[in-house]
Order: sequence, then structure tokens, then C-alpha cells
Amino acid sequence: MKKKILAIDVGGINIKAGIATEQGKVDEFVEIQTPKSDGPQGVFASILTILRIFNISSNQLNAISIGLPGPVGKDGIIYNPPNLQSWGVVDIPSDLARFLNYPRENIYAANDASLAALAEYKFGNGRGANPMIMLTLGTGIGGGIIIDGKPFTGKNGFAPELGHIVLDPNGPRCGCGRLGCAEAFVSHKGIVRTAWELLKRDKGSIMWSLMKESSNRIIPEVVKDAALLGDPAANRVIELTAQKLGLLLTDLINIFNPERIVIGGGITMLGKLLIEPARKYAIKKSLKRLSRDVTIVKAKFSQKAGVLGAAAMALEKIHNRL
Amino acid sequence: MKKKILAIDVGGINIKAGIATEQGKVDEFVEIQTPKSDGPQGVFASILTILRIFNISSNQLNAISIGLPGPVGKDGIIYNPPNLQSWGVVDIPSDLARFLNYPRENIYAANDASLAALAEYKFGNGRGANPMIMLTLGTGIGGGIIIDGKPFTGKNGFAPELGHIVLDPNGPRCGCGRLGCAEAFVSHKGIVRTAWELLKRDKGSIMWSLMKESSNRIIPEVVKDAALLGDPAANRVIELTAQKLGLLLTDLINIFNPERIVIGGGITMLGKLLIEPARKYAIKKSLKRLSRDVTIVKAKFSQKAGVLGAAAMALEKIHNRL
Repeated sequence: MKKKILAIDVGGINIKAGIATEQGKVDEFVEIQTPKSDGPQGVFASILTILRIFNISSNQLNAISIGLPGPVGKDGIIYNPPNLQSWGVVDIPSDLARFLNYPRENIYAANDASLAALAEYKFGNGRGANPMIMLTLGTGIGGGIIIDGKPFTGKNGFAPELGHIVLDPNGPRCGCGRLGCAEAFVSHKGIVRTAWELLKRDKGSIMWSLMKESSNRIIPEVVKDAALLGDPAANRVIELTAQKLGLLLTDLINIFNPERIVIGGGITMLGKLLIEPARKYAIKKSLKRLSRDVTIVKAKFSQKAGVLGAAAMALEKIHNRL
Repeated sequence: MKKKILAIDVGGINIKAGIATEQGKVDEFVEIQTPKSDGPQGVFASILTILRIFNISSNQLNAISIGLPGPVGKDGIIYNPPNLQSWGVVDIPSDLARFLNYPRENIYAANDASLAALAEYKFGNGRGANPMIMLTLGTGIGGGIIIDGKPFTGKNGFAPELGHIVLDPNGPRCGCGRLGCAEAFVSHKGIVRTAWELLKRDKGSIMWSLMKESSNRIIPEVVKDAALLGDPAANRVIELTAQKLGLLLTDLINIFNPERIVIGGGITMLGKLLIEPARKYAIKKSLKRLSRDVTIVKAKFSQKAGVLGAAAMALEKIHNRL
């Protein structure tokens, strides 16, 4: 009997999971809430629940492969994930192996943005590109780089932190402590900050009334809707964000001479308003010989990116076991 | 009889060459002027001269390996080298093969900064580090990245252009057309520009008198000598340059999670005055988990870096022939 892979994407809000065949097809899919308490043990219990939902036992699994929302070392250890409060440092493969009584060496864990990049490379809009870069623009910026078909993760597995390239040394403070990192501009929080700066000086912006439906919070959806209604402040927010994304893309082209850059994450719901001007800026400003062959595209996957990436990682590891 | 490798480093001013054994030892070394006329043909003629000096004929060579001062594609074609005027686009392996009546497939050509990185990785202060990054700070900024022991050069061979990461979008204009690239600050021309900016406002700087010995030109040596004499303007030039180098190093640590960064090139004659504050800045400002294991060191090689790198590249290619 062919064994299967349990591919899991642990997020701050939901845990998604799928069963993948060794051919990489994910043919079952579930999504449950991430338990708010019990830390890693709560998530491990959720994995048991998922096995029950799939009506499969761990001894039918060739591998368990997990994407995690934080820095994960080459050894599968996660370090202080910002959206999984109080986790600290957790050796996921060892602790989950003990919890499930499953072989540690068949459990793989990696950063979710790296896995999203692998999913686009294996099954999505970055297929076969070398090098391929993926930016996941969400709460922060996640990055993934695939070189010669393999995720590049640096000495300890923590690379690439593409959100922490400084775009403006006089820019706003980033969560990392520096001023003007890409993440301080081209992310959910960056867009919100830029929008508030402009709103303070523009009492007539449509965003003020659109905000009422989101508890008076600015969210990227408000900016998009206002922009499509022709609101100058909202359009300026997107323009400023696109400029910074363009600058980041330019740096990445000059550094990596990539074949493809794939852009995903929640912020891409701004769509062409954001990506087209950024793409034009980058192609114009980067060195010709390095941008000549690059294509910059939207990601194929959104909700399933992590699960597909986890499946792809497991397939690779299983292939190397043989 | 063991065959040998002719390793050549073509610069804008000099051509350096050595004979390397298959063990990588370079035991003969010559340096001649780069001919000012005749373009590539002039350099090819110089290579004939070098063979005569070494008293060796091309059929005794297992490979001819050449470093070139400009963008070189994976195929060995050089594109408009800035310091070899009027070369345009030249297919070095094909043209040299024809000139010497030597097999094209045994001729290798690459960018000199990439080869300097390879030399440090194989024989110098970056030995075995993974990933290893090298910055060559000279007229401009050359970059090299070694991943899993191999130079990373991107899709077409032109990566990494580490000098064209923007450090300040309001900075001075770079040769590439953008504002505030690393190369516009941390290079010979960057240091000269910064020095002039400060000198305009400081008629009492010692640099004014020290300049007299260099035909009233500011050169990095003048800045260094004045700094060592306690000149405030000169110390400020180095401080500002070190800050920008620190910012570049921080970006590189966050992007690559490198094991080692090696800094070479003419500007390193400023020594610890430049590198120590830049190193401290980078360790402080980059993400802890990515900087934890990095060491930042001066290059071992200066004059012979290109020749040693060309030898290392040929050894690698010969190894892959087998």
C-alpha cells in the first residue's frame, strides 16, 4: 500500500492540512481554528484531530510535514513565533514525535513563507524558474528563494528575511528596530500607517466613511475600495506602497538576477493597482542585463500555499531518503 | 605529464597571470600592462606574450581561465566592461580559442569579483564558509556569493550586483542611474564625493595640504593619512562611509544568513578605521538569529585574488569534466 504525507500549515488563526500522495497531489483538505491556549501541545492535539477527520492513522503516513509562522532553523526548531504567543523556542519534530509516538526523522518543519515559495516553484506560477524569488506580503513580509530547485535558507535556515532590507534609512521604525525596512512599508501594517499619515491631512477622503464598516479601522480593503472610487488619498497610499515595492524588487533583481519573482500574500488583493506600477518601476530602475529575463507575477496559491509547500518539502525529503 | 592551468586576471591597468597545478598551487606569476589599444585582440596578444614568458605552449595547458573586469554571462561573454573602453560585447572563449587555436571548451571566463570570492572561499579567509559573501570595494563594488561551494550568479551569470542595493533613496546619483546605491557611498568615488562635500565647508582640514602631493585630487590615502593625524573632516568621511558599509552588511546578513563576509578591494587600505565600526553596526542592527554565527573579515588576497580565483574556477570545471 502506498503511504501518504500529512501536510500541515500552522497559522496564527487557522491550521490547514491536507493529505498528499507521493505524486504531490493534495486530495483532501481541512481547516480548523488554531487553539488559543496550551501552546505547541494544543496544536499537537489539533493534529490528532486532523488525523481523525482524515480517518488515517500515523502509521499510514510516510511523513508529517509542517509549515510554521515564524523563524524555523534547519533542524525544525521554531524560535519565538510572533503570532503564536508564548511559544518560545520549540523543537517541533522532537516534541511532536513524542506526542504522536511517530518517528522523529519523518517529521519536517519549515517556515511558512519558504514553503509557499516551494509550492509556487513546484506547482504554481514559479514553476521551474531558476532562481525564483517569492515575496509574501501580509502582516509582515515573508520571503523565499529557490536556487537550483532547492530553498535557499542560509547557514542556520533563517534566510531570506527579505522584509528587512532597508528601503529608506529615514523611514518609519520597523518591528526589528531599524528604520525604513521594506516590511515597514509594504505590508498590512505599512499600508495602514501610510493611510493614517495621509488621512490626518485629508478630512474629505472617502476612506473616513468606508472605515465605519470596519470598526473605524483602516484595512487594506478600505484603501482598495476608496481607490477604485477615485479617492486621491487612497490612490496615493497605493502609489507610495507600489514605489517601495518597486524599490524592493529592484534590489532583488540586482542581487539575484532572478528568472521569476512571484508575489503573494494578503496584500496582493490590491491587485494590479499595486503590482503593475511596482513591476514597471523595477524593470526601469534595475540593471538591464539583470532584469532582461525576469518576469514578475502574482502567486497562484493563497489559502493552500502552505499545505502544498509542506507536501513539496516532504516529497523532496522522501526522495532523498532513497 | 601533468597538464597545467593558465590563470589570468585582466584588469583595466594590468594583466596578471599565473600557472596553476591541478592541486591549485600557483607557482609562477607575472604582471604586464593591459594594452591600451586593439581591444580584445590586444589582450589576446598579451596572453601569447605571457605564454612565452612562462615558456609554455598552449597544448601543455589543461585549461585557460580568465577573470574580466565587467559583467560576464554564464557563457563567458563579456558585456561593455567600463574599464576596457570600446570592447562592447565580446565572446571571450570563442574569440580567444580562434586566436590561440585552442579548444573553446577548455577556456573559462568569469567576472573578476566572482573569482576573488572563489579564491577567498578555496584558499583564503572565507575557506569552507557556507554561505560566503565577498565584497570587493574598489572603483565600484564587486560582489561574490558562494553557496554550497559554488559561485551563485543568477539566471544569466550577472548576479550578484551587491553595489546596486539602494541604501538611501535620497542619496547621490549612482552610475546605474538610481539614487543612493551602495556603490555611490562605499567605493573610491563615493569616498571622494563624501570628502569633497565636507571639505567645501571646512577650509581648515589637513586634507587640503595633504592633497598637494596627489595633484590636488582627493584619494582614499589622503583621507586615511588625515584621519590618522586627527583631522575631524577626514574622520567624519570614514565614519559616514563605515555607516553605509554597515547598512549594506546588515542587509546582506538579513538576506543571506551568511557564515562569513569577506571584505577586499583597494578601499580596505582604510583598514580597521572603516571595517570595525561597520562590523559593529551590522551585528547590532541585523536580526540576531541571522547574525549570530557570522564573522566579518578582511580578505586574505589583494593582488593575486583574481589569478587564484581563475585557477580555482578551472579546477572546479576540470573536476566536472571527469
